[in-house]
Amino acid sequence: MPAHPAARPHGSWVPMRRDHPFGLQTLPYGSFTGPDGPPHAGVAIGDHILDVTAAWPALAATDRDLFAAGSLDRLLAAGPATWSHTRATVTGWLGDAAHQESVSRFLLPARDVSMLLPFTVADYADFYASEHHAANLGRMFRPGSEPLTANWRHMPIGYHGRAGTVVVSGTPVIRPRGQRRTAAGDITVGPSLRLDIEAELGFVVGVPTAMGQSVALGDFDRHVFGVCLVNDWSARDIQAWEYVPLGPFLGKSFATSLSPWVVPLSALEQARVAPPPRDPRPVPYLDDSLEAAWGLDVQLDVALNGTTISEPGFAQMYWTAAQQLAHMTVNGARLRTGDLFASGTISGPTKDSRGSLIELTWNGLEPLTVRGNHRTFLEDGDEVVITATAPGPAGTRVGLGEVRGTVLPHPEHTVPPGAPSARAGNR
Amino acid sequence: MPAHPAARPHGSWVPMRRDHPFGLQTLPYGSFTGPDGPPHAGVAIGDHILDVTAAWPALAATDRDLFAAGSLDRLLAAGPATWSHTRATVTGWLGDAAHQESVSRFLLPARDVSMLLPFTVADYADFYASEHHAANLGRMFRPGSEPLTANWRHMPIGYHGRAGTVVVSGTPVIRPRGQRRTAAGDITVGPSLRLDIEAELGFVVGVPTAMGQSVALGDFDRHVFGVCLVNDWSARDIQAWEYVPLGPFLGKSFATSLSPWVVPLSALEQARVAPPPRDPRPVPYLDDSLEAAWGLDVQLDVALNGTTISEPGFAQMYWTAAQQLAHMTVNGARLRTGDLFASGTISGPTKDSRGSLIELTWNGLEPLTVRGNHRTFLEDGDEVVITATAPGPAGTRVGLGEVRGTVLPHPEHTVPPGAPSARAGNR
Repeated sequence: MPAHPAARPHGSWVPMRRDHPFGLQTLPYGSFTGPDGPPHAGVAIGDHILDVTAAWPALAATDRDLFAAGSLDRLLAAGPATWSHTRATVTGWLGDAAHQESVSRFLLPARDVSMLLPFTVADYADFYASEHHAANLGRMFRPGSEPLTANWRHMPIGYHGRAGTVVVSGTPVIRPRGQRRTAAGDITVGPSLRLDIEAELGFVVGVPTAMGQSVALGDFDRHVFGVCLVNDWSARDIQAWEYVPLGPFLGKSFATSLSPWVVPLSALEQARVAPPPRDPRPVPYLDDSLEAAWGLDVQLDVALNGTTISEPGFAQMYWTAAQQLAHMTVNGARLRTGDLFASGTISGPTKDSRGSLIELTWNGLEPLTVRGNHRTFLEDGDEVVITATAPGPAGTRVGLGEVRGTVLPHPEHTVPPGAPSARAGNR
Repeated sequence: MPAHPAARPHGSWVPMRRDHPFGLQTLPYGSFTGPDGPPHAGVAIGDHILDVTAAWPALAATDRDLFAAGSLDRLLAAGPATWSHTRATVTGWLGDAAHQESVSRFLLPARDVSMLLPFTVADYADFYASEHHAANLGRMFRPGSEPLTANWRHMPIGYHGRAGTVVVSGTPVIRPRGQRRTAAGDITVGPSLRLDIEAELGFVVGVPTAMGQSVALGDFDRHVFGVCLVNDWSARDIQAWEYVPLGPFLGKSFATSLSPWVVPLSALEQARVAPPPRDPRPVPYLDDSLEAAWGLDVQLDVALNGTTISEPGFAQMYWTAAQQLAHMTVNGARLRTGDLFASGTISGPTKDSRGSLIELTWNGLEPLTVRGNHRTFLEDGDEVVITATAPGPAGTRVGLGEVRGTVLPHPEHTVPPGAPSARAGNR
């Protein structure tokens, strides 16, 4: 059925502008619902969505129930052969005008639907893989010590987050409340005064493993289906007071936002680049110098209230997602379909490529100016939108869509605008 | 239908010895399967199981599908009114001999079935609530510093674990592999040489919350259904090398064992005791001095290869489960049905009440003698069984059953018995 998709990387008969990031080169998968219908799975093409829950049983020759549940769960679990076949099939449908008559009745305008979480999130883990981010936070949180902890260059440091509070892009984020310690050493409870973002990529596990099994670097794309954008909202005052010795907990667990479109790894072949050099050379299970180097040239844009405040690049991340997966399973911990792991904040070496406000404002000491307003940390009503693209075939860009969220005030408290969040050093 | 259950706390017509911990005072819920059947939900009574998946539609007047799925998920979500009604109904069936004829056909010997995970684990969080445990580990891991971190007496410190590796009692535990740093400072990769246990109680969330909502101390038993036993297996060498700054990850994520029977909170009314005094007084959302003090007088027994090595008591835990739930949600993180949170290692002030081997052997320096063999950390083939009981009505003991696990060697490596795990100080 696929009609030479490689030869027509962005030539879909679906009308769209020529440089659309959701051209035929991308074809990300998601889950959506109309005003009152059940969830359907869809593939984005330009400003439209192909309803694959409806189209699959009508047009596809195999596995007619693949999208019946309206989420990506069955596709994720089905594994690489099905992933390839499905992508080739949809590429053929949308790329060859001969299919226009039969396929176009399953297209609907993206603006007419609401996007849902695309899959059932099993476990959520978050890493810490940007050397610049880790060093920046080390300088701020542990002044006088080495910026990087002794283990950092030996393994991708990570922790488990709260899967139950992963929400789809667009879900409002309620300002968290919690304990913090003031600069004077007092313990207070109230809404976070230092609400931050973390711009990350998220990787979605499809094929599970059994207890005791580890995933070698070279098996990364046999288990991981695709990539999302993640905003790992962080309450820096809560986090700073709680995180020793067991790590971040309530400073992160109130919400983690996920983009609605999962871009298959196979759409990112042209984005693969060599990771940065590592010193010391990683231990064998993490050594990608000979194979399976999964550096990815993804370019992000972080906008606050409509103004770009940072442009982080993923290519310079010290640890790749393949190394993170190998590490996460080296102890035999099993994977489940729907496991999500995020890269950690993507920060580059320059100030305008830092992926969090605590870095962009250097712990609140250097406010940003956004449309004439000063900002250190987020205020109620602020909207953050993270977008990204990567190189595709024939000069195209592969879009990763966006992850968007607006901060709502804590229901029991209202933070006066301006003053409190501008106080530096109050962690 | 219930025939004065309070008047007959352990008087069931089901034959059992009089002091059986699964008498009528307990009635824990679980999930089981025969040799080839689907999962059924059950209630333990003595050495038998009442098959409630089969009995409910035949005998109960309401909500005939409550146990149809064979797990406790629907019961957990149904909330306190259903929890009370269900318990009263089963108490009546098993307590009143008038029901013997109709009910006995739904009883089967516990030895004939395999127990399953009793519910779908949503998120798993683990706390650190024993002052003695936290201080012991502080002394070993951070010698020369204050044993307790500055935050410890202000909040129940916790972290998220891996829900996907929570396994039911009896599941073998494969020795994890990972990175560690030797005493000489070398980085090596291999099976853990310091595999440990942590004896804990686990609390099972039934009624979920919405994003932004917090659970006040007084609402604890409106959300939490019951209690399990937990063995939070820990690889101390992996943990020690990885845990700064983001907390335990691979040192814990390979396996967490859960007892198969969930004991309802309502069976533990006689076990409620005042928690130990706290200094300083907790902030208001954690202050249980006026209400909702959920100290629980649960007595545990930890056995290694059939020999009791510790008898921790839960009553002296500094932070209660109600405080942990209030803390876990103070930031507005939502709860889901099936969320599991564990107490942290239960260690008392005396050496024979410490709930982990790292404490019992003081970091491996003081080996235990178990049946003539020295033990510091676990060796392949070792079996650990944690059991517990609590005071019930009329002098009975409420049983929490057991959580059991045997250590299997790592499939790619075999640790020579004796030598390596006896090396102290190698973290």
